[in-house]
Amino acid sequence: MAERLYCGVDFGGTNIKAGLVRASDRAILSQVSIETGREHGPGPIIGRMIRAAQTAVEQAGVKMPQVTAIGIGSPGPLSHKRGVVFESSNLPGWRCEPVVQQFQKETGRPATLENDGNAAAWGEFWAGAGRDVNSLVFLTLGTGIGGGIIVERQLIRGGRENGAELGHMIVQAGGRPCTCGQSGCLETYASAWKMATRFIEALDAGEKSALSCRHKSGLPITSKEIVEAAAGGDPLAARIWEEACYYLAVGCVSIARVINPDRILLAGGMIAAGEKMLLNPVRAKFAELNWKLRCDGMSLEPEISFASLGNNTGIMGAAGAVELAINEGTIKLN
Amino acid sequence: MAERLYCGVDFGGTNIKAGLVRASDRAILSQVSIETGREHGPGPIIGRMIRAAQTAVEQAGVKMPQVTAIGIGSPGPLSHKRGVVFESSNLPGWRCEPVVQQFQKETGRPATLENDGNAAAWGEFWAGAGRDVNSLVFLTLGTGIGGGIIVERQLIRGGRENGAELGHMIVQAGGRPCTCGQSGCLETYASAWKMATRFIEALDAGEKSALSCRHKSGLPITSKEIVEAAAGGDPLAARIWEEACYYLAVGCVSIARVINPDRILLAGGMIAAGEKMLLNPVRAKFAELNWKLRCDGMSLEPEISFASLGNNTGIMGAAGAVELAINEGTIKLN
Repeated sequence: MAERLYCGVDFGGTNIKAGLVRASDRAILSQVSIETGREHGPGPIIGRMIRAAQTAVEQAGVKMPQVTAIGIGSPGPLSHKRGVVFESSNLPGWRCEPVVQQFQKETGRPATLENDGNAAAWGEFWAGAGRDVNSLVFLTLGTGIGGGIIVERQLIRGGRENGAELGHMIVQAGGRPCTCGQSGCLETYASAWKMATRFIEALDAGEKSALSCRHKSGLPITSKEIVEAAAGGDPLAARIWEEACYYLAVGCVSIARVINPDRILLAGGMIAAGEKMLLNPVRAKFAELNWKLRCDGMSLEPEISFASLGNNTGIMGAAGAVELAINEGTIKLN
Repeated sequence: MAERLYCGVDFGGTNIKAGLVRASDRAILSQVSIETGREHGPGPIIGRMIRAAQTAVEQAGVKMPQVTAIGIGSPGPLSHKRGVVFESSNLPGWRCEPVVQQFQKETGRPATLENDGNAAAWGEFWAGAGRDVNSLVFLTLGTGIGGGIIVERQLIRGGRENGAELGHMIVQAGGRPCTCGQSGCLETYASAWKMATRFIEALDAGEKSALSCRHKSGLPITSKEIVEAAAGGDPLAARIWEEACYYLAVGCVSIARVINPDRILLAGGMIAAGEKMLLNPVRAKFAELNWKLRCDGMSLEPEISFASLGNNTGIMGAAGAVELAINEGTIKLN
């Protein structure tokens, strides 16, 4: 049997990344990154995604027919089964675009489509910080909060394929409005972007902070500056950062009750804050807030830890989605 | 092949129910109900469960060896895989009790154990208001709020087998303390018991209601009296009832985001309140609060409706669990 080679393509609002991954040892043999050019609409973007895949395959010194199949990670909403990406506020002009069909036509290889949060969760399970467990929940803490759920080694896409939107669990009924149209979503309190928004609102309302000057001079304030200021003892930054950690812990409690996974993995830009400022406070709050399910003195609560794939998450998740599709029988090997 | 006959045993804090169910048409051929006698501890209670099963089988004019297998629904926490019920505040004196092993030893038939919320969800999927969908979430509104999750025709027990505790999703971070040890749980706002507790707290704090006299004279006030008073225009009852409906809708939004099922089924004592007082307000609030995921103009949001098995839920869920175990390969037919 020929060596299995999976091409992973990860498509986001800013960049398209593609890479070739060797299944046997999950090694990334090549990778390319190009701009998405979101304004060009679905046709040109799908064309760029296909070219990125072709370039990654070439750079690895491989011919397309040697590639087992192509996995595509995309923002949702989408249908994995139908291989189409739906319209959404993040993708202006898209409308049930047949991404899988176009990939298959242009490359001659089987292809599979996954929600990027689901693909990332699967990537960690396949090749990252979830290799040693049977169930995990993945939370990516970036502009928004994305998620993915694996139970008994199965990816749980949800009944109508658009579940695991864990940033949009309501943690504070009647709380802050979310860009999604709901109120009180986890994302509204704990994502990097919304945290920065709340910090800036507080500055604009006259609260004092070491970052006031930076804000007044028009420089951007992100979760990075906030956690640095919090670590340095700035009270406003500390309050906003701790609040984000608190809400993350609340979200983890709901995840523990609904999914009861072995592990919750935190990923995304915010985890650069590290163990001391992010992981430890979230773990401590979680231990305080959750009901502490036990049997024979053994905890049945999930561990909370950091994901490990970092910048390779997109490619590894999309490539891993090929193996998932093989396991599930939707991609059949010759 | 002999006709398949499933014996279902449902065990709760008050009663043990057992029944024999014919698999071909899901007909209940016999049923018995006896008191649990919770104070007697695990040994005697498991003995009573076994006798209830034997009585139900006899009453149907069947011999135990003709029974395909026995399904047992029990309050959690428990392990389906190991067939044991763990210690919990609801079951004083229990400690990893090998319920399945004892059933098998005493009856000579294969047996399977499910959390009662999971079994009830499966029962509705197998023989009730979920027969026509591939995914559903079940919420039982009683003393507490129990749950069950089915995705792609699979029961999702959760990573460590103790998920789907949907009454203990946190919907109001920092909110009312729950008997489970957490705060702000859905159950705290929307279960029949906690609703009555809040109503009585309000009366004791001096709020006026048509039910004040009833309360003063020492008669009990349950969700039934509250919804009747609410329907009759009592402002305090209406406020507490509407709040429960609101929080149920909030819970349904989180369920829609995490599990994205085809349908959410409401069950338990509270659904006697009916369509006008319960279902319609929950649906209306849900439509107002959720982000309205759509594709091609078609909603990807779950419908919300009532479960249909009523008093047969326990037996049908436990009996259905036999078929689930056969499907999953954990009970093998000769």
